[in-house]
Formats: sequence, structure tokens, C-alpha cells
Amino acid sequence: MSSTMRFGSMKIFSGSASRALGAEITDYICGASEYRLKPGAYTRKVFSNENIFIKLEESVRGKDVYLVQTMASPVHENFMEMLIMIDALKRDSAWRINLVVPYMSYTRSDQKDQPRVPISARLVANMIETAGVDRYMTVDLHSGQIQGFFNIPGDALSALHLLSDYVLRKLRQGELSDLVVVATDLGFAKKGRNWAQTLGVPLAFVEKRRVDNAESPRALSLIGSVEGKNVLLVDDEVNTAGSIVEAVNVVRDYGAKDVLFAFTHPFFSDKAYQRFASLDLREIIFTNTLPIAQDRKLPNMTVLSIAPLLGEVILRAHEGRSVGALFNE
Amino acid sequence: MSSTMRFGSMKIFSGSASRALGAEITDYICGASEYRLKPGAYTRKVFSNENIFIKLEESVRGKDVYLVQTMASPVHENFMEMLIMIDALKRDSAWRINLVVPYMSYTRSDQKDQPRVPISARLVANMIETAGVDRYMTVDLHSGQIQGFFNIPGDALSALHLLSDYVLRKLRQGELSDLVVVATDLGFAKKGRNWAQTLGVPLAFVEKRRVDNAESPRALSLIGSVEGKNVLLVDDEVNTAGSIVEAVNVVRDYGAKDVLFAFTHPFFSDKAYQRFASLDLREIIFTNTLPIAQDRKLPNMTVLSIAPLLGEVILRAHEGRSVGALFNE
Amino acid sequence: MSSTMRFGSMKIFSGSASRALGAEITDYICGASEYRLKPGAYTRKVFSNENIFIKLEESVRGKDVYLVQTMASPVHENFMEMLIMIDALKRDSAWRINLVVPYMSYTRSDQKDQPRVPISARLVANMIETAGVDRYMTVDLHSGQIQGFFNIPGDALSALHLLSDYVLRKLRQGELSDLVVVATDLGFAKKGRNWAQTLGVPLAFVEKRRVDNAESPRALSLIGSVEGKNVLLVDDEVNTAGSIVEAVNVVRDYGAKDVLFAFTHPFFSDKAYQRFASLDLREIIFTNTLPIAQDRKLPNMTVLSIAPLLGEVILRAHEGRSVGALFNE
Amino acid sequence: MSSTMRFGSMKIFSGSASRALGAEITDYICGASEYRLKPGAYTRKVFSNENIFIKLEESVRGKDVYLVQTMASPVHENFMEMLIMIDALKRDSAWRINLVVPYMSYTRSDQKDQPRVPISARLVANMIETAGVDRYMTVDLHSGQIQGFFNIPGDALSALHLLSDYVLRKLRQGELSDLVVVATDLGFAKKGRNWAQTLGVPLAFVEKRRVDNAESPRALSLIGSVEGKNVLLVDDEVNTAGSIVEAVNVVRDYGAKDVLFAFTHPFFSDKAYQRFASLDLREIIFTNTLPIAQDRKLPNMTVLSIAPLLGEVILRAHEGRSVGALFNE
Amino acid sequence: MSSTMRFGSMKIFSGSASRALGAEITDYICGASEYRLKPGAYTRKVFSNENIFIKLEESVRGKDVYLVQTMASPVHENFMEMLIMIDALKRDSAWRINLVVPYMSYTRSDQKDQPRVPISARLVANMIETAGVDRYMTVDLHSGQIQGFFNIPGDALSALHLLSDYVLRKLRQGELSDLVVVATDLGFAKKGRNWAQTLGVPLAFVEKRRVDNAESPRALSLIGSVEGKNVLLVDDEVNTAGSIVEAVNVVRDYGAKDVLFAFTHPFFSDKAYQRFASLDLREIIFTNTLPIAQDRKLPNMTVLSIAPLLGEVILRAHEGRSVGALFNE
Amino acid sequence: MSSTMRFGSMKIFSGSASRALGAEITDYICGASEYRLKPGAYTRKVFSNENIFIKLEESVRGKDVYLVQTMASPVHENFMEMLIMIDALKRDSAWRINLVVPYMSYTRSDQKDQPRVPISARLVANMIETAGVDRYMTVDLHSGQIQGFFNIPGDALSALHLLSDYVLRKLRQGELSDLVVVATDLGFAKKGRNWAQTLGVPLAFVEKRRVDNAESPRALSLIGSVEGKNVLLVDDEVNTAGSIVEAVNVVRDYGAKDVLFAFTHPFFSDKAYQRFASLDLREIIFTNTLPIAQDRKLPNMTVLSIAPLLGEVILRAHEGRSVGALFNE
Repeated sequence: MSSTMRFGSMKIFSGSASRALGAEITDYICGASEYRLKPGAYTRKVFSNENIFIKLEESVRGKDVYLVQTMASPVHENFMEMLIMIDALKRDSAWRINLVVPYMSYTRSDQKDQPRVPISARLVANMIETAGVDRYMTVDLHSGQIQGFFNIPGDALSALHLLSDYVLRKLRQGELSDLVVVATDLGFAKKGRNWAQTLGVPLAFVEKRRVDNAESPRALSLIGSVEGKNVLLVDDEVNTAGSIVEAVNVVRDYGAKDVLFAFTHPFFSDKAYQRFASLDLREIIFTNTLPIAQDRKLPNMTVLSIAPLLGEVILRAHEGRSVGALFNE
Repeated sequence: MSSTMRFGSMKIFSGSASRALGAEITDYICGASEYRLKPGAYTRKVFSNENIFIKLEESVRGKDVYLVQTMASPVHENFMEMLIMIDALKRDSAWRINLVVPYMSYTRSDQKDQPRVPISARLVANMIETAGVDRYMTVDLHSGQIQGFFNIPGDALSALHLLSDYVLRKLRQGELSDLVVVATDLGFAKKGRNWAQTLGVPLAFVEKRRVDNAESPRALSLIGSVEGKNVLLVDDEVNTAGSIVEAVNVVRDYGAKDVLFAFTHPFFSDKAYQRFASLDLREIIFTNTLPIAQDRKLPNMTVLSIAPLLGEVILRAHEGRSVGALFNE
Repeated sequence: MSSTMRFGSMKIFSGSASRALGAEITDYICGASEYRLKPGAYTRKVFSNENIFIKLEESVRGKDVYLVQTMASPVHENFMEMLIMIDALKRDSAWRINLVVPYMSYTRSDQKDQPRVPISARLVANMIETAGVDRYMTVDLHSGQIQGFFNIPGDALSALHLLSDYVLRKLRQGELSDLVVVATDLGFAKKGRNWAQTLGVPLAFVEKRRVDNAESPRALSLIGSVEGKNVLLVDDEVNTAGSIVEAVNVVRDYGAKDVLFAFTHPFFSDKAYQRFASLDLREIIFTNTLPIAQDRKLPNMTVLSIAPLLGEVILRAHEGRSVGALFNE
Repeated sequence: MSSTMRFGSMKIFSGSASRALGAEITDYICGASEYRLKPGAYTRKVFSNENIFIKLEESVRGKDVYLVQTMASPVHENFMEMLIMIDALKRDSAWRINLVVPYMSYTRSDQKDQPRVPISARLVANMIETAGVDRYMTVDLHSGQIQGFFNIPGDALSALHLLSDYVLRKLRQGELSDLVVVATDLGFAKKGRNWAQTLGVPLAFVEKRRVDNAESPRALSLIGSVEGKNVLLVDDEVNTAGSIVEAVNVVRDYGAKDVLFAFTHPFFSDKAYQRFASLDLREIIFTNTLPIAQDRKLPNMTVLSIAPLLGEVILRAHEGRSVGALFNE
Repeated sequence: MSSTMRFGSMKIFSGSASRALGAEITDYICGASEYRLKPGAYTRKVFSNENIFIKLEESVRGKDVYLVQTMASPVHENFMEMLIMIDALKRDSAWRINLVVPYMSYTRSDQKDQPRVPISARLVANMIETAGVDRYMTVDLHSGQIQGFFNIPGDALSALHLLSDYVLRKLRQGELSDLVVVATDLGFAKKGRNWAQTLGVPLAFVEKRRVDNAESPRALSLIGSVEGKNVLLVDDEVNTAGSIVEAVNVVRDYGAKDVLFAFTHPFFSDKAYQRFASLDLREIIFTNTLPIAQDRKLPNMTVLSIAPLLGEVILRAHEGRSVGALFNE
Repeated sequence: MSSTMRFGSMKIFSGSASRALGAEITDYICGASEYRLKPGAYTRKVFSNENIFIKLEESVRGKDVYLVQTMASPVHENFMEMLIMIDALKRDSAWRINLVVPYMSYTRSDQKDQPRVPISARLVANMIETAGVDRYMTVDLHSGQIQGFFNIPGDALSALHLLSDYVLRKLRQGELSDLVVVATDLGFAKKGRNWAQTLGVPLAFVEKRRVDNAESPRALSLIGSVEGKNVLLVDDEVNTAGSIVEAVNVVRDYGAKDVLFAFTHPFFSDKAYQRFASLDLREIIFTNTLPIAQDRKLPNMTVLSIAPLLGEVILRAHEGRSVGALFNE
């Protein structure tokens, strides 16, 4: 008898920053397939010298492993944990290591826009590749070019459809009308256009400009028109919600009516919760690529789950089926 | 007596796509320093099987070599010639190989914006690194992130100051007034803002949108206002001049007066010359990162030389002096 | 239920330089196996800045992909297209990328036989490996050592048996007799011996020698004897057919009767067609590793198809069966 | 005139975890040489998404840079800052990047002593090499083999002489006598022997053994004899001081008189300060490879500065002089 | 019909230093599974310029290959043969190359414990990785950290259980009692503790110390107590048996009764056989990771076969089953 | 004061296979320059487990090191010693490591001329590069293409001029006339032509052919004419001198008068000495790239020293002067 390898069955591990999301993804896959997956078991300890220790509690030899770990706060611990888990998976002879990073950190450091600065996003990509990852998946990179920082294949997904479908439903059901999409930053202009095109509504921009070559204050103005319209502000990530406060002020100055805000990554600082609480926004729409403090969630916040998208892409990646087909592309 | 190495003197080679520019750069350096440089000598043959053959006619052992080669037409021959020259320099034990590529090709293929496409700009970066380059210099990459496609140090320069100083002089001398900067593409929005900020004038955008999900025709509109103003269209690269024709039409429709056009890279096709000839533009301003056909140069074309900028940066790179300081940064 | 991957089915893509050959190979495989293969679908555009754009029109996730692309004229476009397709295949998560290059270019630049020259064949190998190829297949490299320029496995095949079987049949059927094999270049001496040994006939050489240390003219002479014999000239590649004209003159000077010519790669320039048309050769025998201009094919040209050989090797490589066994080795 | 490069002058940068030590090292070098060094200037910001941002405020082109950054608490931020600074130095074309890490973290994860665990120390070495370091310096790695985790040259220094000279002086001056060296862990046995040999005194060990295959409690015993002797406990690193409490108890049980404790790296948790405060130790001797809380320093703590050793090694490394000669080896 | 690959069946090759052990391993696997394996066939020649030539006599395309080759005498020939076989396997397109090195050489050169020495064990690891190995297996590395010299996964196994089970059986059957484990070298202290813990007996150490800073003579002493006890000396490797002679003398001086000796790797020189013959040891217990001269085997030598352990691990590695589970870990 | 590095002075180390040659090279350089070089000092031990141990006895920090080590018998020990010395030099922070290998072994294994064999010459090149060499120098590689197995720069020198100048002098002085060059192997045909062209004499070949597809016996014949001429047999390397015996017989059969023999590498086995002793050769001319047994040197053997050539090339490489110019190329 000739030997047969029993290689390649799927295994999902969730890092400590993505336990809930990992479970949701696993549920999706169990629902959408006949696989009966249990979460990958591992022990995690932190020693008194802050060193993170990982021990896999089940063998991954020959497995097609998916490690879900977002780069939530504390960012650097979660990043190091990710790399250490990759090393453990690699040294236990996983057949393929797929890294699922719903929110990739350091993506705003993606170019030298002034002398003598690093390109930290490339550094992060190098660290991930060097640790031993075979493929990566992520959602709404700050710039699409960051895909090119990786030399390994990856699925750089977008939450645009998840978010815009939600808004589109409101438009179609008459809950919302007379809308203008406003990009809060010129670096988001092209993605703003995609939003506007998908919704079939006009587009405007908030322009920030340095005055007298000073770092700040900045002069803000609006390019395009929002007079008498409802406004959907769009962005990719929120930290302190400082620029959104400015943007709301600008569009109100220019005569906007109701203001909604949609974005992908809720990396909320304390200030962000405070500002959102006092800001007159009709609705704040975002995803769960990062966990938020459940007790500070406001009534006007709508969280759309990214788990079905990630789950479906994992399933297709595992089975060698087209991911692009998922988007009719 | 202990031995001494005579390492590290400067040597400039110009590839066949940049002979004139290379000479201009060498002249600049000889003028700005006490170096007496002669152009690096080499033989170039093309065999009947199209293979390019290079022989360096002087030794580069221990030299700090600068190879100037732009990716002009024919792009792929010039790219392969560049790589072959790098290999020859490397195998002749150059101490450091600095690649000067005034116009880097394939930079618009810098992300997977649809499934199953390549990221050719990363491929080009990989080829250059693998061939053996130690440092690179280039001008106005399509996106700044392409710097992160390289793992080696580089000077990603901009022609913005060269071009905007020229326009600023006109504004200050009263030859030009009442100006609005218009970016011809939303992907150029942030760079358009930099133009507008540098000149101290307002900003507007041409927006292109697919209609009915068709590939084309596209609907064009203007975001911002140009009514009764002179317009400076800005972009990075011109090929067929098709989108500039559209942009001129749009700004005229919205009431613009005189229209000028400034950009960095003149990669002109036949059509571009024809279109420029029949297009009512007050002035077309660009650099010599790429050679143009001298006999087809129009009276309203102003070519600003990039040679002093590249020469100065080469000089500083060679001497270990700050390049950022050159821009007061 | 445990998951199963559906990995590893075969997919053949033909680059634009090898569409006909790719189809022939696919036909062979469909005839020799139960696989029902359709050609891999992709879109290819060339932008006005000469940039080649590729979009795969079907997913290759988890596939065992064979990309057939010869390095025909225009060599550099075809080479860049090859690399770009590899990048697209890699980034779409192909399981294994096998590159099939019937004619590898730049193989004559395989050593530094004078100072300060490149080794372009190693450069080409590095580019192919860096782009992401897992295995390569090719036919009659200029020197066998080029296999060692690759660090990845490969099948460096020979068309010798294909060509010599054809000649052997003529010998056995009495259509040809009294034959001497003549190598047109001393660098081909050992392969000439293999030809002579396979056919069981004597061997001679054309020797070229520089006179008075000048680059040219060269003195040609014959080592060995062809007096009153029919001569089979053998070589690996034809470009301008210049050296074959010389070789025919030499063997005729030494008393040869009929002259035939066999070689592998028809990289014909205009001059080659002209020279062949006026040259008194009984038969010109070669393969289709490169396409030739069908309308300039001469009556005395015999083209033997390499497709069955490549098809059989692809089939065996895919199924993990011995390729060497194919040649009883 | 031929060009000259002004390459290779020394520059020292201190990361935020080693500002004081960096200054001390710089002082040493200025005292021991004619160099007039100023600390390398840079800006460090932490954004609200926790991303660390570095901007070098002076050019390092062509410089021989020494980056001093220990892996103190918070370990992961300090590690990421180190990598980001390396990236900034690399992309600003430093001639050579020397990383000085007085305390390297994760060195206890240096082997797979159970299945399915990582080797995090190798991961850390890989990260450092990938970021672009040319040489490293460090003090008292947990195991000497970690040098082999690096493929780049390094100076793995020891504080043994610094610490033992201090003790030796006490022995010679009669302040201390009748001493036995006791290693607190069998993994430190060989280094314990080096201590004992250097001091010319006997050696004993604390042995820890699992009971009934349980993780804990552990049985501790002493191998060797301390009856009626003064004891010098030796180790490499202290975190919670838990095992030192055990060791003190064991040697007292076996009849020790005064107990001293010497080690290299004071990575003190809260508990360590508390335990040391209540532990009857005659003297606690260690170095400043890590900063300690000055206000919690106990009267019986002696901190010996590692700065002269690091400064001298940097000086010799910069000037291409032997470091081994420093230790008469 | 879609194609199917017949990939991944197992194939075992035994290098010329491990033919007997390779056969034993194959037998074990055939007994423990339904596989019917024949030894991998290859030709080995040594040319008169000492070059080793390998030709595989069967194709390994797509196979999961296990190459068993120990680093017995002559070490360097056997090492080069190993690397050459790996190259042959790689270039024949093996699917996965697993290297089984029962005894890894050069592992004592695992750190720079003095200036200006190599770390040859890392060099060996680099050579193995560069040659193209995917995974390695080995037994009782001199230090566990050598695992970290490899960036590829591996199974670093231990013969401790094989050896200690044998001794434990004697203890349980009353053939042996009143035992103390004595480590012959302080570098073996921790492994000595593992021995003592596994057997449930006390531990002691031989300490070697340089006198007067001279290279030798050395002073030997015993730490711990063996008075009136039977002693089990433990070590990892024996070459000349010089230090074991010293250890036996020391323990006898300190009052030991019977002395046994257990270790893993019998790399016996002539002197070793002579010394063992004249040394009063009750039993010498070791494994067959290295072949010994059968005609010089002494009556008090017990050789325990490592083949079942290696066979079981190969089987599990091949089938993607846990190896750790084999040890209840 | 700004710091200055004292980098880059020359240091020559001779491995144990090239002590005499290394001394000769050092003498040449001291004669041809003002450098006062002493041989690099190091200790070499072989342990009883055959492991080679190297300790450099002087620091090479910042030095331009030349390591001379030929691959003489015992080939594998000498190769491993070379790699270990490279590791020691690298880890001691040499500025540049130049490897001088007068005779590179395994160069005949430079292609897969049959299935399932290695390309050992590429393996050797990979080992050398991986160990950390920056540049290599060698003499008369079996095939020039082996230069392309290296990705680092190198000087692949030839002893042709050294040997042919010696013969040319005889021709000019009338000691020799009426000469024909005969290549003993068709793989040496092109180099034979270079010999013939340099001497200005005719060329002929010994052809070996398998009979009846058997491995041996082989049929030998002569292509070209030697009737009544003196013959100079040429080759690159001699091992057993078996094929030279055959060649002498063949040329005698075809009517040759006196026979001389010139080649580069004397890797003589016992048989070679015996055969040369009984073979009627007028003169045997070769170099000292390999040491020979001085007591077995025959009266008709002429050894030409390669030391001046290597010394001159080292001098030029060190000083960054052209090596090609040395050959008027």
C-alpha cells in the first residue's frame, strides 16, 4: 500500500485581541459549510518581565491554519503576540499559515512625506513575512498600495459594500434622502468618489490647509456644495474624533442638515467617546474590525459585523475558490 | 607601511535613454564642486536576437557609481538595459551602485484595485533590488507609497517646487492673476492641495464617474468653482493627453478664462502632440525627466530642467550631506 | 465533518508569444490524459505609456499553473509580460507556478569571458525566481550550466531526440547516406559529438580564428574531413544565418556534397530569411520553440513540433511521475 | 580634482528607554577620545492610535550610527520604537547601523523545551536583522547560544568582570571572607563555576525538582555545602525576586551566614521591590542595563554602571580595534 | 474530468553513513503502518578528485522524502554527501525534503565563548537550510538552543526516555539500587537534573576548574555526595572517553561503589575503545545514532536502538499527526 | 573633533591547504607595493570528533581580508575549514571578506546532463555566499559559466597566459617547432582553440564515443591532423592521468612526434604519479594551484607559480584598480 497524507484540514486560532470576532467567524463557516470547527486551543501567559508565552494545546502539523488577530490596543503587545503565535505555528509544521488582521496598524506611516522618517507600514509587513506567514487577509488598508509592501499573496478586503449597502437600504426605504457624500480628508478623495458613485449622490470635500506655513492653526473649507442637504461623512478610521468634529462644523457652516458618519475602523480613545457623546450626529456607522467598549456604546452607533465577509473569504481561500467572484468581479 | 584603500570616488554613467540629461547633471556637479568628472564610458550593442550587450570601458572597482537611466520609450528595452548595466557594475565590484531613474515606469500599477491583477510597481522594485542596486533616486512617483516597495534607501524627489516656483514668479510679476488650481483626477487631490497651498490660491477638482456601471461613457463634473478665473490644471504624467482635453472642456464649461497646465513627466504619444497642438492652452509646463521630440515642441511648451535638482542630490548623497536640508526640512 | 481542500488541479496559461504553441500543448495533454482543459483566460492591454496590463479572468487559487511564454521578438516586452503574469498568478494564490519557456533569451551571456561585462543569463534567472516561479521548463539552453543559474528545480529539455529521430529515419529509409555531422562552432563541439554518436556517423568542426588579433576578418577552417560526403550542420539557434553561410562555404570548399542544417531555435531576422532563400541547402530542420513568419517559410524548411514533448513533461510534472523515464534514463 | 567621501563619522542615538545610559556612554567616549559628540537629535510622538512616530532631526547619511535602546518596560513599545528607529536610520542612508541593546528581552524563550512553543528569542533576532541592523552589542544574554540566532556580527558582552571585580575588592580588603558562590538555577551552573573560579572560592547549587510530576509545588535542595559560610547568590536577571527568596531560604536552611546577591539585569516588578525590602540580604549588586525606580532603591543595593564597558566597546568597534583585547583574550 | 495530483507519498533514503539505521527505521514504519516501503535507490561514486557523485535511481517528484544521514566519521564527507543528496532531491522536484540527522556534528561550537571564534553549529544549520531542506529531525543536540539556529521547523528529539526507561527497569527489578546521578560536566547540569528527576534519585556534579589561569592542569572536584552509593554518570556524547576516565576517578575518590555510564552519541575514537576496555564500569549504555565498530564492542556495552523513535516520528510527521502527543506533552 | 575610522587595511590569511602559496602571494605583494604584511595569525585544532576549530589570533575588525584556501586533498576538510574561517572572520566584523580559491572543487558537476543528479558546483557557490564572502577569486574554472553560479562579484582568472607564455618562449627560441595543439576532450574545444590561436599553430581534438550504448569501452579517434608534428596536449585538471594516457596513445597512433602536456590544476592521485613516470612525455607543464608531493616530482615536470598573478590581482582589488587592465582588456 502506498502512503497517503492527511494534509490540509482547516484550523482557526483567535489571538487575544480577536476572541469574539474569531468565534463569530467560526460560527459563520460552520453555518456556511459542513465543517465542524472547534476554536484552536492554546495557552497564553505573560511573565513578570512582560514576555508573552504561547503554547499551542493541539498539533497543527499539516493543517491550513487561520490566525485571527487584530491590532487593537495595546497595539504592540497584540502585534508581538501575533508574531509569536506565527512562530509557534511555523515551528509546529503548519502546512499553511494565513494571517487574518481585520485592522492593520501603522498603515498611515506608508511613505516618506518628509525627510528622515520611517515607513513603518513596510516594517510591519516585513515583520509579518519574516515571522513565517504564507498569506494575509485584512480590511480597508489606509492606502491600497500597502498590498505592495507584501511579497506574499493576500486578500485586501473592503468594508465599503457592507457599509454602503446599509446606507443604500435607508435611501431606498425613504428613511434618508437628498444626500451628499463628504470626504473628511483629501487623501480619502478617491474612496469618497467610490462612496458617492455607489450611492448615486453628489460628492464634496473638506479641505485643510496650513496658514502662513505654521503647523497649526489650519484653515478648513468645503469644496463642493452641501447647502440644504443631508451629509454622509466618510473616512477609514477614527481615533480621537478630532477631525470629525471639525468636519461637522464645516458642513454645518456651509448649510448642511442632518449629518451621518460612516467609517471602517473604530480605534476609539477616551476622547472619541466623549466627543461622539456631545456631537450632533444622526447616526454613526462602523464595523467590528476592532472591539469597542460595550458600556460606552451610544444609541446612535450602528456596528455592522465584518465576520460574515471574513468567514466567507476564509472558506473560499481554504477551498481554492475565487474570492473576487464574491464581489462579482 | 600599512595599506590604504583608494575607495569611493564618484563616477556617473548615463544609460542610452538619458544621455543628454546625464551630461547636464554631470555639468551641474562640475560647476557646483571641484570634481572634474568625465562621463562613464561603456559600449552598448544590440545583437540580432535583440539581446542588449554592455561592456564597461573603464573599471568601477571601489567607485561610488551613479547610473542615470530613465524609463522612456521603448520602456522595456530601457528597463532591461538598466538591469544589465547594474549587473555589469556589480560584477565589476563597484563600491556602491546608486540608480537614478527620473521617470519610474509601471507606477500606476501600485495596488490590486480589482481581483487577479499584478502589482507591477512592486515587481519593478524587486527587479531593481535583486539586480544589485544599493540606493535609488527618482522624481514624482505616481504615489508616495511606492517608496515602501523598496527595502533599500532612496531619495524620492518632487518637481513640485521647480514647477511652482516658475508659476509663482509669474504671479508675483503680475503676468498671471486670479488663479485656481484644478486637479484633473481625484487621486491627485492631495498633491493638488499642495500646489494650491504653495501658490496661495483656491482649489477645485474634476470628478470622473462611471454611468450605469458601464466602463464608459463617463460623466465629468467639477467640484469647486472656476467661474471667471484663470485655471492651472495639475497632474503628474501625460501620455495621450486625453484626460487633459476632457479637463479643459470641463473647466471651460464651468466658466474658466485662460487655462495653463503643469505636470512632471512628458511621456508623449503621437496623439499627445496632436492634441496639444489643437488645444487652446496658454502654457504647458513640464520637466525633462523624459526626452521629448524636439521638432514637435510647441511654442506654448515650457520645459524646466530637472538636472540641477538631481545633480545637487547626487552631490549630497555622495558626500554624506543632508538632502532634506536642501528643502529646508 | 473535517474540511478537505480541493487543491492542485492543472491550469495552462499561454502568454501572448506562445498562444499557438500553448494550444497545441493543451491539445496534446487532453489527448494523452482524461483531463478536459480549457485555456487559462486573461485580458492583456498595453497602455499608451507602453505599460502592459494583465487581468486573469479566472481564479487560480490552489491551482497547479503552467505558464507557457517563449522569449520571442519583441524579447523585452515578452519577458516583462511573463514576469507580470507570474506576479498576477502569485498574488492570486496559485498553489504552484510552473514557467514553460521554450526559448530562453540572453543565454549566450552566460559568463564573463572579458572584463566588465554582465552575466545577463543569471540576471534573467534571478528575475524569474524573484517574480515567484516554483519550477521552470525550457528547451536547449545555450549551455547546460545555465540550469545552475536557477536555485529552483527545472526540466531543461533537449530537442536533440526530436531532431535526430527525424534524420535517423531518413538514414534508415535510405533517403540519406554517407553523412558527416559538422558543428558550426567549437562551443557546440560536445553537442556535435552527441549528434554524431546518436546518428552513428563521423564528426567534424568549423574552426573560427581571429587573425592578427583583429576583431574581424576571421579565418575559417575545417577540422576533420567532409570530402565527398553529405554534411549535416548542427547548431542551437539561428538569428541572421550569417555563420551558417560561412559554414556552408567552408564545407563546400572542403568538398562536401549535399548540405542539411538542423537546429533548435529559429529566432529569424529578416536577413535570415533572405540568406536561407539564396543558400543551397537540401533541408533546414528546426522546431517551433519560436514562431516563424508563415508566409516566409521556404519549401526546404521542416518544422518539428516541440508541443508533444512539452505536453508530456507537463503531464508528468503535474502527476509527480518521472520525466527522466521518458528518455529511458 | 577627484571626489572624496566624508563617510563614517560616529553618531550616537539613545532610544527613549535608554536616554540616561546613552548620555553616560557618550560622556565616556568624549572622555576617552578626542571626539566631541552631541546626542543624536530626533522627535518622538505617540499618536492616539498608539502608533509611535520618529523623525530624525539631523541627517545620518554616511554615518557610523550607534542606537542605544534597552528592552525595559514597556517592553513591546520599546522594541517597536527600536525597530522603527532602525528603519528611519536605514532609509536615511546611514553607512552602518550598530544596535546597542543592554538588556535583550525574550532570551529565556531560546529553545523548544516542550512541543508547540515558539523560540521567541530567534524571532526577536530575525526582526532586528530584517529591520536593517549591521551589528549588535548586548550584555549577558540568558544563554550564549543566542549569539548564534544572529547571522550578523555582534559583541555579546558580559558584566561578570564588572560585578566580580567589585566582590573581589571586598575579598581582598577583608570586608568579605569565607565565601561560597551559589547558583540559584542549574541552567546557570557553568556561569556559577566561572564566578567561583574568578573569585577563587567553592561552588554550590540550588536544585529545583518537580514533585509527583506536578507543575508545582517544587522541592528545593542544595547540592554542595554552605554550612557556616557566607554565600554569594548569582543569577542573570531578576523579575519578581521569587526564586531568590526561595534560594535565600534554602541556603539559610543549610546553615549559611551572610547572604549577598549579584546579577546583571534588574527588570524589577513591584513585587521585587517589596520582596527585596523584606529579605535579609547583606548586599544586592547589579548593573544599570535597565533603569530602576530611583525612589525605591534600597540602601543595600549597589548599582554598577555598564556605561564605561559599552562606551569602550563602541569606541573600539568604530575605530576597527580589537574588543577581545579589552579582556586580554 | 478535472486533474488530480498524486502527490505526497513517503520515500526514505539512507545516506552512506546510516544505511543500517535507515533500514531499521523503514522496517519499523512498515510494521507500524500499512505502507510497503522499499529503500530509496541511488548510486554513489567517489571520483579520483574526491568529489562525491550521487544519482537518484528513482524519481522523487512530488514525494515526501526522508533522508537519513548521520554525521559519523568521516564527518566532512558525510556532511557533503548529505548536502549533495539534498540538492539532487530538490532539483528532482521532491515535494518535501525532511532531513533526519541522528547525530548532528559541530554542535559544541554553539557560541562565541571567546573572541574571534566561529559559531560553526549555526554555519551547519545555514548550510542545511540553504541546500533546500524543509524540515529536520535530530537527537539530543548538545544544547537545546541549536533548534533556534534553524528557521525551518524541526523535531529535536531526546534519547533520555529511551535510556532512562532502561535504567528504570533495572531499578524496579531490583538489579540496581542506591543510585546517584552524576553529571560529568556543569554544562550538562540541567539535563542531569532531568535524569535524576526521571529516576527519582539524587544528583551530583563533577566540577572542572582551571588552576592559575592555565589551560591545564585542571582541578576536579565533586559537588554533592556519592559516598557509598552506586553512580550513574550521564553525558551526551563520547569521543576519547578522556573526561569519563576523570569522572570515574573523582566519584571513586569520593567513595562511590559501582559506576554505570549512560550517554546518547557514541562517536568513539580508538582511544575511547582502549579506555573503556580498561575502565571498571559496570555498564556502558548508549544508542545507535552513530555506528560503532562491532568487533570492538565490549561485553559491558548495551546499545539501545533509536530506530523505533525516529520511525514513529517520521510516520507522524508524514501523516500530520502530533509528535508531542507521543511523549504525553 | 570629528571621529575618523581607520578602516580597510589589508590582511592575508592562508588556510591550511595553502600555507606555502599564501606566503608566496604575500611576498609578491610586499615586493610590488610598500605594504609590510605579516601572515594573518590563527590557531587551528581538530577535536577527536573531527570537528575543526579555528581561533583568529588577531582582530580583523574593519580589515579588507583575503583568505587563501585551495580545495586540495582532503577536499571536504579543506572546504569546511574555509567555511569556518569565513564565519570567524565575519563574526569578528571584517570589513570585506575576499575568498581566494586557486582550485575550486566540484566544478565538473556544473549541470544536470542526466536526470536526478545534483549541480554540486552551484551548491558549493551557495555555501560560500551563505557563509558570508563578499568577493571571490579563482583560477580556471572547469566552465566559465560557474561565475554565474555566484551572485557576488569575483575574479575568475585564467592560467592560460602563464602557461602559453612559457610554451611561446620555447617556440620563439627554436626549442620547439612544428606544433599542433590537441584538446583531450571536446568539452575543452573552445579553450583548445584559444591555446592554438595564442600560439599561432593548428588545432586537433581527441574524440571519445560510447560504443553500443555501453558505458565503456569507448572508441577514441582524432579529429584533425598530427601526422609528423609535435603535439601539445592541453586540459584543465589532472586526477588519475587516465585520459592523458589514452590521448597520448591516440596521437601517437596518428603519427605524432614529441608530445608535451600543459594543464592548470595538478590534483594528482597515486596513479597519476605512476602513469606520468611511465609515460613518454617530453614535458609536463602545470601550475601550483594545488600542492604536489615534492618527492614524487618528475624531472620532466615544470611547475609555474600562480602566486604573482594572484598577488597582483589582490593588490588591484584592494586598491580599487582595474584587474582587466592587467590583461590589456
